[in-house]
Amino acid sequence: MCGKTQDQANATEQDSAAVASEIGGSGTKPNPSSLAPVNLDHGDPTAYETYWSKVGERSTITFTGDQSLSYFANAKNLCWFLEPKLEEEIRRLHHVVGNAKVDDHFIIVGNGSSQLIQAALYAVSPSDQPQPTSVVSAAPYYSAYQEVADLLRSGLYKWGGDAYSFNKDEPYIEMVTSPNNPCGMTREPVVNRPQGKIIHDLAYYWPHYTPITSQVDYDIMLFTVSKCTGHAGSRIGWALVRDKDVARKMVDLMVISTIGVSKESQLRAAKILGVISDSCLLDKSPGLENFFEYAQHLMAARWEKLREIVKVNELFSLTEYPSEYCLFTKEFTEARPAFAWMSCKSDMEDIEKILRGHKILARGGKRFGSDPKYVRISMLSRDQEFNLFLERLSSIHGITSGN
Amino acid sequence: MCGKTQDQANATEQDSAAVASEIGGSGTKPNPSSLAPVNLDHGDPTAYETYWSKVGERSTITFTGDQSLSYFANAKNLCWFLEPKLEEEIRRLHHVVGNAKVDDHFIIVGNGSSQLIQAALYAVSPSDQPQPTSVVSAAPYYSAYQEVADLLRSGLYKWGGDAYSFNKDEPYIEMVTSPNNPCGMTREPVVNRPQGKIIHDLAYYWPHYTPITSQVDYDIMLFTVSKCTGHAGSRIGWALVRDKDVARKMVDLMVISTIGVSKESQLRAAKILGVISDSCLLDKSPGLENFFEYAQHLMAARWEKLREIVKVNELFSLTEYPSEYCLFTKEFTEARPAFAWMSCKSDMEDIEKILRGHKILARGGKRFGSDPKYVRISMLSRDQEFNLFLERLSSIHGITSGN
Repeated sequence: MCGKTQDQANATEQDSAAVASEIGGSGTKPNPSSLAPVNLDHGDPTAYETYWSKVGERSTITFTGDQSLSYFANAKNLCWFLEPKLEEEIRRLHHVVGNAKVDDHFIIVGNGSSQLIQAALYAVSPSDQPQPTSVVSAAPYYSAYQEVADLLRSGLYKWGGDAYSFNKDEPYIEMVTSPNNPCGMTREPVVNRPQGKIIHDLAYYWPHYTPITSQVDYDIMLFTVSKCTGHAGSRIGWALVRDKDVARKMVDLMVISTIGVSKESQLRAAKILGVISDSCLLDKSPGLENFFEYAQHLMAARWEKLREIVKVNELFSLTEYPSEYCLFTKEFTEARPAFAWMSCKSDMEDIEKILRGHKILARGGKRFGSDPKYVRISMLSRDQEFNLFLERLSSIHGITSGN
Repeated sequence: MCGKTQDQANATEQDSAAVASEIGGSGTKPNPSSLAPVNLDHGDPTAYETYWSKVGERSTITFTGDQSLSYFANAKNLCWFLEPKLEEEIRRLHHVVGNAKVDDHFIIVGNGSSQLIQAALYAVSPSDQPQPTSVVSAAPYYSAYQEVADLLRSGLYKWGGDAYSFNKDEPYIEMVTSPNNPCGMTREPVVNRPQGKIIHDLAYYWPHYTPITSQVDYDIMLFTVSKCTGHAGSRIGWALVRDKDVARKMVDLMVISTIGVSKESQLRAAKILGVISDSCLLDKSPGLENFFEYAQHLMAARWEKLREIVKVNELFSLTEYPSEYCLFTKEFTEARPAFAWMSCKSDMEDIEKILRGHKILARGGKRFGSDPKYVRISMLSRDQEFNLFLERLSSIHGITSGN
């Protein structure tokens, strides 16, 4: 398993660098041409750049040279590297959106939710077991869970595979991703045995992606600025944690592995989350478009275009989502996930390979513990790349590998 | 060993939160009173705040809301999340100071050098060994090495203790810290067996702390903004890595554990490092005080005051450093380390306990694989705390635990 993980780690990096270089240079605005592949492998959330450029001054932040030198942000807090302003804005946003209960939870900030996954695994793994505790998730599952769980061949935990197959009478940890990455469906735990610890990854539980059907209240809930506002470059995630000992152990991991989290990113994230909350409140937002409405319309329009093309060419199919009442928008809506989970109608095909042959890079189903007939496609690219993707997809008329 | 690590992790966090709360509140300017302990346990480098407040506008940076949304910073680089401007300023600073060769090395940015230690251990650990590879360092060694090595009970590496005691005929990794944390001495590898990999931690190899006696050129060299400029809150470290495969594996770890490093911190660090380089070049720095000269004078003055007090009370002793020619300042100077490594003249005393009894918090020798008669004291606090420390130290006339 470890060798496999190593291969995967290498593959991840090589893929990242390779495909990244193909989308166009320096990480600034790409210039897709008919020759370069369009890279929708990652969920790089650049779709929201236009919104933020329209917001202007309100979302600008300045740092003087003598600011934030110290390791400490709030020495009185259990999470002593968490900026008080970020904590305040995280709590406010959850109150405004109504997606998660925060009043009885500790807030732990992390270098993206990736680090918080590791911190949560560390915190809930029993330390008295002879073997590492199994980490499971229902397939299709987020491809990073296996990478994180197996990265250092930990004696505390290891990847245990598809939660649907887990039937051992021993401690386990279940990652529950809802809405799910890659497929966008609402999820519940599937193992349901007495010795389990559950980590809820709620990165996509925001109104632009899915109807907010309840104010959830779990023991450990993970969120990230990346998918909420689009600021993936800031590497800010947060965990809402009910139990003080678990919260303390998560802080321990963060201290030993990185001695906390960038103060600049935290303060900027506080500013950005504040703008989003303000944008939802009429009295605070003269001239400021409601971010979630903006993003919801953007995503709905993209999904509509994609569904039209898939319907016409008849080779592929997309996941369908039920219409549900959203407590935030007060409307019945369908999910508009950050990723499209697309499959070949023909069972025997490797859809990642087919798309690659048509210069569309996406992540194949096998990486998610699923079948090569599935592929995950980011819906969060810039307009230019998304339109190029649609153009290329619509040009596929017969299934060949294209190689 | 793992249980011990866990205890240490808890101790670290509890210490951090507890002592932090004692230094005065929210992480901003503390207000030490005669009742509160002065916390010199951490090397929190707030001593340089005054310099940065004098620099003013030149070190200010502004971010607009639509900046740096993407995960990518430079898709063409092996380290694709490294901001090009930061890479440029790191290379420039090493050229200006002359402390390390950079032209034949890859630069990998990390969330502080803590993450780079983990990444380097991951990258150089052989993956084909039946047992985890031993990580060793010559005592007294930086207390975090053991914590990082044992944190997740990795099957790749584990803490192996004092390098002076390592005599196994098997692969090992030696951490060489020069100047050394805690004692400030120049260090070389001590094991010198054929199967070793060496990681050079050069966090303090800057002219304000030690004479720059050569332009070093090792396989893996770790640096951090925290100790160089004082911006610990930014969590930016960098590694200079000669071998491409090692560099790639370090990037792998960074991608899986945190998907890179805060763009805001990187861009601000680029700005700050740029100011420091400019401050060393007369033509670029009208009105800008040479940072290293400023910091060197500050440290020299603090060391002089401390040595005077220690000389008078006759209970303690301090490490002595040889005078060496510094290629940067073109003068013979002694080291003025970021930590004082102080001992009791009486062999039987626990100096950490003695100081604690006089409301001075510092880190005892046992944490560094040394004797309780030693203690590490940060020399990088703000003036107010440093002066309070001197005042309290000078009031100790007879050794009692003070409890």
